Amino acid sequence: MPHISQRGAVMPDSPIRKLVPYANQAKAQGVRVFHLNIGQPDLPTPQIALDAIRNIDRQVLEYSPSEGNLSFRKKLAKYYHRFKIEVNPEEIIITSGGSEAVTFAFMACLDPGDEIIVPEPAYANYTAFAISSGAVIRSIPSRIEDGFALPPVAEFEKLITPRTKGIMICNPNNPTGYLYTREEMRQIRDLVLKYNLFLFSDEVYREFCYTGAPYISAFHLEGIENNVILIDSVSKRYSECGLRIGALVVKNKEVHDNVMKFCQARLSPPLIGQIAAEASLGVDGEYMLVNYNEYLQRRNFLIDGLNRIPGVFSPIPMGAFYTVARLPVNDADDFCKWLLTDFRLDGETLFLAPASGFYTTPGLGRDQVRIAYVLKKEDLGASLRILEEALRVYPDRTAQGTNL
Amino acid sequence: MPHISQRGAVMPDSPIRKLVPYANQAKAQGVRVFHLNIGQPDLPTPQIALDAIRNIDRQVLEYSPSEGNLSFRKKLAKYYHRFKIEVNPEEIIITSGGSEAVTFAFMACLDPGDEIIVPEPAYANYTAFAISSGAVIRSIPSRIEDGFALPPVAEFEKLITPRTKGIMICNPNNPTGYLYTREEMRQIRDLVLKYNLFLFSDEVYREFCYTGAPYISAFHLEGIENNVILIDSVSKRYSECGLRIGALVVKNKEVHDNVMKFCQARLSPPLIGQIAAEASLGVDGEYMLVNYNEYLQRRNFLIDGLNRIPGVFSPIPMGAFYTVARLPVNDADDFCKWLLTDFRLDGETLFLAPASGFYTTPGLGRDQVRIAYVLKKEDLGASLRILEEALRVYPDRTAQGTNL
Repeated sequence: MPHISQRGAVMPDSPIRKLVPYANQAKAQGVRVFHLNIGQPDLPTPQIALDAIRNIDRQVLEYSPSEGNLSFRKKLAKYYHRFKIEVNPEEIIITSGGSEAVTFAFMACLDPGDEIIVPEPAYANYTAFAISSGAVIRSIPSRIEDGFALPPVAEFEKLITPRTKGIMICNPNNPTGYLYTREEMRQIRDLVLKYNLFLFSDEVYREFCYTGAPYISAFHLEGIENNVILIDSVSKRYSECGLRIGALVVKNKEVHDNVMKFCQARLSPPLIGQIAAEASLGVDGEYMLVNYNEYLQRRNFLIDGLNRIPGVFSPIPMGAFYTVARLPVNDADDFCKWLLTDFRLDGETLFLAPASGFYTTPGLGRDQVRIAYVLKKEDLGASLRILEEALRVYPDRTAQGTNL
Repeated sequence: MPHISQRGAVMPDSPIRKLVPYANQAKAQGVRVFHLNIGQPDLPTPQIALDAIRNIDRQVLEYSPSEGNLSFRKKLAKYYHRFKIEVNPEEIIITSGGSEAVTFAFMACLDPGDEIIVPEPAYANYTAFAISSGAVIRSIPSRIEDGFALPPVAEFEKLITPRTKGIMICNPNNPTGYLYTREEMRQIRDLVLKYNLFLFSDEVYREFCYTGAPYISAFHLEGIENNVILIDSVSKRYSECGLRIGALVVKNKEVHDNVMKFCQARLSPPLIGQIAAEASLGVDGEYMLVNYNEYLQRRNFLIDGLNRIPGVFSPIPMGAFYTVARLPVNDADDFCKWLLTDFRLDGETLFLAPASGFYTTPGLGRDQVRIAYVLKKEDLGASLRILEEALRVYPDRTAQGTNL
């Protein structure tokens, strides 16, 4: 048979996925595995969305428009307005999850060989979407010691080449939980203006900012309205990952029309998902507040607990529902595997995400893990106890570090 | 702002989409427009699928597995068995519509610059998916005079280069309704073997074969099991276009694993769609038979009517629910536009798809249109009357041809 594509061959193999068989094996042995490895919210989908699905009264489940249902886009525009993002429905394109929004943004803006700069650690699948489009990701390390703040502008400028076409950020950040400050966002804006770049801004976690610091959308930045491509999704904010409904918001007409070509080729985004997502926009404040408070409490509980474990350090994430923590181990990939294959505390263990998968610079993040706080507090408590005991007996532990 | 991608710029602009504003204008004027332009079935979605959606009893609409739900894939394997396609659930990958299946097949098998040979007229979006992957489509014209039969093998061989990686077919065919014969499928198999090619086979219309001639799946061909990538979708067979549920079936482990990398990057196919599609596989024979008979009667009625109109010729489509017909006009693009802008018969007109959009060889199909028989017989009758009268008065009509 002919050769498969190189493109697939260079696609990074996620260290999380490599561990799944070990997790399954552990479960088959009757071990309880706490999943801190994925961003699958455990909180309920709004009842209003479930009801909308139940009440669908159609005889034919037809294609929806390639850009998504107008009624949904109108409500989304109003939703964005609450965050001082002023866009009209014609500037919103509904996609099959945030994943498709990123893919189409890259397809429409980047040619093979074009480069985008991404602070790392970063959401691992950006790399996959870049590979699909032939674009190249150039990473700038952010440091755990700085709480994963934006790397200095000078570091960005070092990476600028004639092929640099854009910057990609995730704000609030997956995996770090970092929330870019107004000053950092200004620096990004200046870079975008100075070098004439696209700014791809993934803001799917905007509802989850915990410190009172303002959420600065890329669309709040003056003078680059035509450079911004905002990526959105209902997956995280309404616990609707399964619906596969995201959005791409763009004021630039040329980019918009180019994205639409890819949208038209795939015909339409999911119909039922749109109906449920549209209904979700009408959710009452109570639902959002309850979920927000739940994540906030979990965050406080988890980070406090992590930093009490000898040798463990986690910055305090300002948003989203993840943290990247440093462990006193030489190789977090190995530690995460060992947790699943060898370690049990009263018949329980943990599935953590090795942070190596979120870095593209080789060797970075080898002693870090990403922890998603998508379990209830009681289970987070058990997870902390397991982690502490595991680190105590893990053979390849580093010399006792001090918590930073 | 920076330049958009070339990739988008070379994406063909569909002649159908160009006409949509004219159709909308006509409708705004109170004109009734019969839509023969799109493959959106009008027949009802199975009740069993609608009920499955209504009865969803989940609190959290979670991600499903990247390869799709196992229960669904198990039932799909049984479904394929009824068509003598022997695959196991591990060889089936659920996608967001057939569109994503084609995209991922190209991404996983083709590198930029790789070529695939496609008989034309062909489903227009194959070109878009090829452009996304950087692959190049080389077209071989099939001729309306031959009923759009497979072009001679020698024509394929003329296009083979060191970059040729595959052949793509759609069987039964959109837009022509052609069903490849056993002999033609054998010829394709021999080409695949001789030149070591992938065979991308889009078989979403398999339920709709009207002549008693057998449906030969690419998986029926001996000796190329490892070269075949089968594309499927529930959209057409169950009137479920809005669900966005398709499938990619592949026995070749290397291709499978490569496709899975793209699937994992986009996390999962739509959950609700899978639930409805899985339920649809349990539909009773009565539903399929009623729909089949409905399409069969429409086909007979439409083709007979078309060939009675002076100067019009349509081959008799053997499957799917389309035909490509030749009209006595110089420029079907112009004729289709004129129908929407200028022609009305008792306040009614037609939206036909210019066939030019299904050809990539410039100049071909200029006097052809694709007609989808997704309207009830009564409306098809009205459409035929409109077409006949329109052709009588259309200014740029060709000299009276004879029906072939």
